[in-house]
Amino acid sequence: MTQTSMMEQPLKVAVIQLSVGSDKQVNLKNAESKILEAVKQDAKLVVLPECFQSPYSTDKFREFAEPIPSGETTMLLSALAKQNNVFIVGGSIPEIDAQDDRVYNTSAVFDPNGEMIAKHRKVHLFDMDIPNGVYFKESDTLSSGTKATEFELDGFGHCALCICYDLRFPEIVSEPIRATDGFLIIVPAAFNLSTGPKHWDILAKCRAVDNECYVVMCSPARSKAEGAYKAYGHSMVVDPWGDKLVEAGEDEEIVYCEIDGRVMNMMRSAIPLKQHRRSDVYHTKCEKCAM
Amino acid sequence: MTQTSMMEQPLKVAVIQLSVGSDKQVNLKNAESKILEAVKQDAKLVVLPECFQSPYSTDKFREFAEPIPSGETTMLLSALAKQNNVFIVGGSIPEIDAQDDRVYNTSAVFDPNGEMIAKHRKVHLFDMDIPNGVYFKESDTLSSGTKATEFELDGFGHCALCICYDLRFPEIVSEPIRATDGFLIIVPAAFNLSTGPKHWDILAKCRAVDNECYVVMCSPARSKAEGAYKAYGHSMVVDPWGDKLVEAGEDEEIVYCEIDGRVMNMMRSAIPLKQHRRSDVYHTKCEKCAM
Repeated sequence: MTQTSMMEQPLKVAVIQLSVGSDKQVNLKNAESKILEAVKQDAKLVVLPECFQSPYSTDKFREFAEPIPSGETTMLLSALAKQNNVFIVGGSIPEIDAQDDRVYNTSAVFDPNGEMIAKHRKVHLFDMDIPNGVYFKESDTLSSGTKATEFELDGFGHCALCICYDLRFPEIVSEPIRATDGFLIIVPAAFNLSTGPKHWDILAKCRAVDNECYVVMCSPARSKAEGAYKAYGHSMVVDPWGDKLVEAGEDEEIVYCEIDGRVMNMMRSAIPLKQHRRSDVYHTKCEKCAM
Repeated sequence: MTQTSMMEQPLKVAVIQLSVGSDKQVNLKNAESKILEAVKQDAKLVVLPECFQSPYSTDKFREFAEPIPSGETTMLLSALAKQNNVFIVGGSIPEIDAQDDRVYNTSAVFDPNGEMIAKHRKVHLFDMDIPNGVYFKESDTLSSGTKATEFELDGFGHCALCICYDLRFPEIVSEPIRATDGFLIIVPAAFNLSTGPKHWDILAKCRAVDNECYVVMCSPARSKAEGAYKAYGHSMVVDPWGDKLVEAGEDEEIVYCEIDGRVMNMMRSAIPLKQHRRSDVYHTKCEKCAM
């Protein structure tokens, strides 16, 4: 059994640490201009942050929500992907489901034909209450997804996609990466100023090392507006060895990175984790089938 | 469902970064004197490193191997635990199994009555071949264990125990910690000078954060002897937030740490990962039952 990836060419990624305000049209215009800037730098994959057209605020999600794929944000990203021959991971937006009238925190992915090739609804809602720290309860207004998400970046290989708090649950990315020999975990996220300094780096690096793949973390820029949610920033790309390749600061910024499958293949040959896994051992505690 | 631990009192841990040479009797004498030193400092739990009475060398394992519990090393540790009223995690030694004549890399744990309360055989053997780096193949001479290991530290709570390379496989510790609401992962380990600088900290911190528990990493001191295996050192204790509480250098040293369950309980209340887990989602990729 070999663990080589299917990645045949390097992939230039643009991670857009977008400033997000309270006006949807301004946010969309800004996202568009940054995507065009990234395309001019020959990015082949462009990643936007969590909640890039809406304030990250539970009482705003329904107001900013749109259906997917018929809503204006989805149609804009699809058109931009097609016009510019680029893959776009559309961070996340509040999605309204016409069937059940529920709102989800959803990331849509577009290929260079403008086709939506994946849609991830955040599975783990962020309900947090740190004494003398942060209170934030997504489940006050959001519903949760029911599946892990992977997609193929045609010509490069497979990616796992999850949103922010999802990343604290290792299986949500390790299962799709193992199942597809994927090369990249993409995480639109808006960690706060309590958890960001403590856990942003650790989680990004360890998911990379455990899965022997690249990790892209994409945060909104830190807002200077009074009362606004303060995202940690520090969007980054980590390689399979756990080394940080690029890192943004706190302000609006695009960071670029060339992802080279040879680094990953070398690591997977040197330390063949997938071959060494012992599903006979872990299975003794399989949570659902209880065998 | 609450996630409070059963830990009712702080636990003083001594992590013994032992110098290990090629003479078993010298190694055992040294381990004994360090354990006595730790007990004088009121340590209630003493941890020894991987391969603490044997060189870490595939061609030496069978020569240094002993049966457990009838071998001299096991009997020594049992007596020291009883005489000094202390828990001892006996790092690891090469264990010879009289039934199958196989050699395992095995950690035995003793309670203050001298009873052996757990035995872990390293599950994942370290077979590594980094180009221009390290070649080391445990499976040349060792056999592997077949189960994850946990034990109760009476009066404190449950611990998961694994050895070195095991730690790269998240489930080997996360499953016992989740199953028992455990408070501590103990890892006798001898990372090398390729993987140590890159991954020792990342793995320790991320296992702590993912499992919201303490992690103790115990390495041998770095040998100055020519031709000897060079362990990374840097034995450490990490708290549930991923913060490093104590860290050794490269030489022989004992580091002490007081483990306080309140820190863990606060984190588990603030970010209730166990309640938020979605076994319905991960289960779709259960590796053995394939449902």
